[in-house]
Amino acid sequence: MSEPLKIAVAGLGTVGAGLVRLISERSEDLEIRAGRAIEITAVSARDRTAERGIDIAPYAWHDDPLHLAVLDDIDVVVELIGGSDGIAKTLTEAAFENGKHVVTANKALVAHHGLGLAHKAEAAGVSFSYEAAVAGGIPIIKSLREGLAGNSLHRVYGILNGTCNYILTAMSEQGREFEDVLAECQKLGYAEADPSFDIDGIDAAHKLAILASVAFGGEVNFDAVHVEGIRHISPMDMQFAEELGYRIKLLGIASIRADGLEQRVHPCMVPVDTPIAHVSGSLNAVVADGDFVGTIVQEGPGAGAGPTASAVAADIIDIARGLRVPTFGVPAGQLKAIAPVPMQRHTGAYYIRLMVVDKPGVLADITAVLRDHAVSMESVLQRTRDPGEPVPVVMTVHEAEEASMTGALEEIAAIGAIVETPRMIRIESL
Amino acid sequence: MSEPLKIAVAGLGTVGAGLVRLISERSEDLEIRAGRAIEITAVSARDRTAERGIDIAPYAWHDDPLHLAVLDDIDVVVELIGGSDGIAKTLTEAAFENGKHVVTANKALVAHHGLGLAHKAEAAGVSFSYEAAVAGGIPIIKSLREGLAGNSLHRVYGILNGTCNYILTAMSEQGREFEDVLAECQKLGYAEADPSFDIDGIDAAHKLAILASVAFGGEVNFDAVHVEGIRHISPMDMQFAEELGYRIKLLGIASIRADGLEQRVHPCMVPVDTPIAHVSGSLNAVVADGDFVGTIVQEGPGAGAGPTASAVAADIIDIARGLRVPTFGVPAGQLKAIAPVPMQRHTGAYYIRLMVVDKPGVLADITAVLRDHAVSMESVLQRTRDPGEPVPVVMTVHEAEEASMTGALEEIAAIGAIVETPRMIRIESL
Repeated sequence: MSEPLKIAVAGLGTVGAGLVRLISERSEDLEIRAGRAIEITAVSARDRTAERGIDIAPYAWHDDPLHLAVLDDIDVVVELIGGSDGIAKTLTEAAFENGKHVVTANKALVAHHGLGLAHKAEAAGVSFSYEAAVAGGIPIIKSLREGLAGNSLHRVYGILNGTCNYILTAMSEQGREFEDVLAECQKLGYAEADPSFDIDGIDAAHKLAILASVAFGGEVNFDAVHVEGIRHISPMDMQFAEELGYRIKLLGIASIRADGLEQRVHPCMVPVDTPIAHVSGSLNAVVADGDFVGTIVQEGPGAGAGPTASAVAADIIDIARGLRVPTFGVPAGQLKAIAPVPMQRHTGAYYIRLMVVDKPGVLADITAVLRDHAVSMESVLQRTRDPGEPVPVVMTVHEAEEASMTGALEEIAAIGAIVETPRMIRIESL
Repeated sequence: MSEPLKIAVAGLGTVGAGLVRLISERSEDLEIRAGRAIEITAVSARDRTAERGIDIAPYAWHDDPLHLAVLDDIDVVVELIGGSDGIAKTLTEAAFENGKHVVTANKALVAHHGLGLAHKAEAAGVSFSYEAAVAGGIPIIKSLREGLAGNSLHRVYGILNGTCNYILTAMSEQGREFEDVLAECQKLGYAEADPSFDIDGIDAAHKLAILASVAFGGEVNFDAVHVEGIRHISPMDMQFAEELGYRIKLLGIASIRADGLEQRVHPCMVPVDTPIAHVSGSLNAVVADGDFVGTIVQEGPGAGAGPTASAVAADIIDIARGLRVPTFGVPAGQLKAIAPVPMQRHTGAYYIRLMVVDKPGVLADITAVLRDHAVSMESVLQRTRDPGEPVPVVMTVHEAEEASMTGALEEIAAIGAIVETPRMIRIESL
């Protein structure tokens, strides 16, 4: 039996504590599976004395996480500090320079600096692993990079942020307002005090950029992701979605088109009979479409100590077993720089809700604008008439180009009888 | 760049032809992903001249598949012949003896001889890979063996036979009889002329035994799987299931209990709000429950040329990349011989349908038998009364031991007013 694989853990928050627990509780079984013992030998965190429900006395303590990168007896540095820059990046680079593998759960780091770090890991002959960075416990990186490696994938999409999905599910099932559910999430610790990363779609965009790179063999290109969050979703839109046969989900969608790579994160109306419509609460799901395999759907917990520790552990076991795959599935130098398709060139169907003060001729004005932008209406819904009060007018339109749609909406917003900013939600047939 | 990986393919049916197509169409990309070229150099099949939609002229032809095992320039033998014994087994063993890796889609072979073959592969220092043997294109073996390797899994279950799921879906959605849908399947080529392997649950049992071994680190034990098929499922039971809030699915379920390993394949009533209830048509799905990760669901096409070729290709790419994992996740000598739990010790809820000639006192007789066997009734449903004609009486019972339930059913069957064999379908809460 080989030498033990020695691990240093930087960051002992929920996930770090979960990983320590996993490795100590399951050490015997891990040794059998990996063919060698897996031992945590050093740790670092902000506060040595914090209560974490684990005993860190057996591990060498380092106040400075950067020390972990230079320890002689360490094979793998597990980076659980977070943040796209700063100490997480410095530590990762220092670990590579010292010939150590890095396992991380840090989606921001991989999304922003994945390509450069992949080059550095390759030059050092070590692994840079990040299964935990995307979709928590779902082994989606391994599935795309290895399990579906025989395919040309043309689309990958999913529910990538559990907080948003929890909020949208609660809004849909309980008819509640966004702000109300968000406040509850913050109280329960499901959402951060500053929830912007989650609810504005940035976290999902980090994950999507990573998925797209692995799925299509392209350079990670986070800056090219079109990002919208869920702040403007209202119970009224939820209700109209239901009536039209849809659910509203925040999706990340990456697809290969003839003219390049489209990457977008925004609320979508998805048909109620698709698997993705039924992924509820804080669950995540990822769907991959390939030429030979067809469509594969994976669903599971997208966050939390246990699922994330499971993913980190899988990466560690791979390293212990000696399994090495290029960071994004192909050598860093052979990743393609796929041209990004700007959102204005996206085509799709749309749901539009206008708040209209009912005056003669308003609908004629609206439809004229749509016609002028070559946008073809599919259905229109005007429930109540309340003279003097604004009422919702809901339209769905057939496939149109985003540029036409946004142009039309700008003009429509300027019509006198339209009293609020028009709401637009894209319809995905999937 | 390393030497090309050289492949011999034995068996050129749908899957074999699909694999040849995948490897030739995608050769450039595979070479980038694998870090070396992947080349088919030799093939063997029953009929050299059969029309397969592929050109086999570039490959050395061998009438005898066993020749593939001794070719000097071959690294991997792909066994797509099928059957648990005979030529498939002989070829696999011969390949190992000659130091060649084997990739197979043959579930019967792995279920019956997996342990012995794993020992032989290990002794020869080669891989024995079978991703395509379970759930077609879903990379479930890799997910369990690597992606979830940090977990102690306690249950794995799923829809493992696409033919059965197609039949049950059509029966449920169209109210049709089993025999009618089966005949259609046979006409369309979805079911074999002798459909027994599929519809009697044997194919699903093969796959379940393999999944259980990988999930729990135990020796494959196909003989211990309790197997029932779907021949006796009727539209009437489908309809009652719907009314009770269930769908009927053929599931394979393997779970670890305090007293050992339970493995069973049989029709189940599953709550309509579970993901598994919505897996329709010929799709497969596998669910794994782990201590750290929670529940992971994977869904996709369970058969067909493309999906199966995708899985075979993934195994080949792993070999080309130099990734080696023990056949069932732990070295063959360390697989546990987990005690099988006989089906009579299973506990669960049950649906029972009796055809009863309505006579005073019949229900009293039935309930007395249940009471005597300590089986507690949850609900009873008797729709129509038609004097002289048998009418269905449907009952659901609370959690009971299988032995009690079967004992009770035997006695109930002997009651004079019961005119057909009582039908029993197990209810899984999942």
